[in-house]
Amino acid sequence: MAHSNDGTRGKRLYLEDLQVGQRFVTATHTVDAEQIKAYARQFDPQPFHLDDVAAKATLFGGLAASGWHTAGITMRLLVETGLPLAGGILGGGGEISWPKPTRPGDVLRVVSEIEEVTPSRSRPDRGMVRVRNETRNQRDEVVQLLIAELVVPRRAPAPAK
Amino acid sequence: MAHSNDGTRGKRLYLEDLQVGQRFVTATHTVDAEQIKAYARQFDPQPFHLDDVAAKATLFGGLAASGWHTAGITMRLLVETGLPLAGGILGGGGEISWPKPTRPGDVLRVVSEIEEVTPSRSRPDRGMVRVRNETRNQRDEVVQLLIAELVVPRRAPAPAK
Repeated sequence: MAHSNDGTRGKRLYLEDLQVGQRFVTATHTVDAEQIKAYARQFDPQPFHLDDVAAKATLFGGLAASGWHTAGITMRLLVETGLPLAGGILGGGGEISWPKPTRPGDVLRVVSEIEEVTPSRSRPDRGMVRVRNETRNQRDEVVQLLIAELVVPRRAPAPAK
Repeated sequence: MAHSNDGTRGKRLYLEDLQVGQRFVTATHTVDAEQIKAYARQFDPQPFHLDDVAAKATLFGGLAASGWHTAGITMRLLVETGLPLAGGILGGGGEISWPKPTRPGDVLRVVSEIEEVTPSRSRPDRGMVRVRNETRNQRDEVVQLLIAELVVPRRAPAPAK
């Protein structure tokens, strides 16, 4: 059940609209060496993210994006063309891993799948949703896996018990 | 066993130098509203990260940094004045959470503690280290908890068995 978001930006989803297995696919973002180095200069100034030549001698074997840069690109894709959640994309945390590096020239997109929907017991106006977000490159390789716990508002408060 | 890194930047630690319980504390970084909005414009363009007035009406109740911005600041602090690891700070992933928002004016620092040191079975030249990184504000509140799995080189290869 892939769900393309093009042209549906006006429709925002509440907790009641979400179900396990629902999928969302973002638009793409092309990464280049300048973006990788600019991010690294600001947040992760290490040779393998800053300099093509120095990167060759490291475990990466060539310039690679900071994992936190991949996380930032992923977030922008999710916010702009991914999960159309009422209240925005608001997370308490999650698990993140980078199975492969992001390289200059990579074309990234994010494939998200709802894994769990849990109404809050204490807060009748919201719930938690666990979302598996795979950031994939142009060869469909996963460069980042983010299992995120998000807060999602309910359209109508849960009835009092 | 708190370990201040001031003046010790030349000394890089290998797997053999690390032990469970070892602690490292970074210098500080002061966050302001302009940094929060600049990051948000680039990577997380949502009202609660972009606009003081709009943020008031959200769950945050005022301008707050993107969690991924806090992650970037944390990484820069770790790279420049935190974990002095040989080979740099190179992670395969981890668990991240944001117990409290980062706000304009917050003065952040990172307190890291080695939780586990595991020589690689397949690669005699390296090992994995699990590090608990608490990003704390000026009131000592934890704004981000990152349990990171890092790759650390050995000074001498493990003897063949």
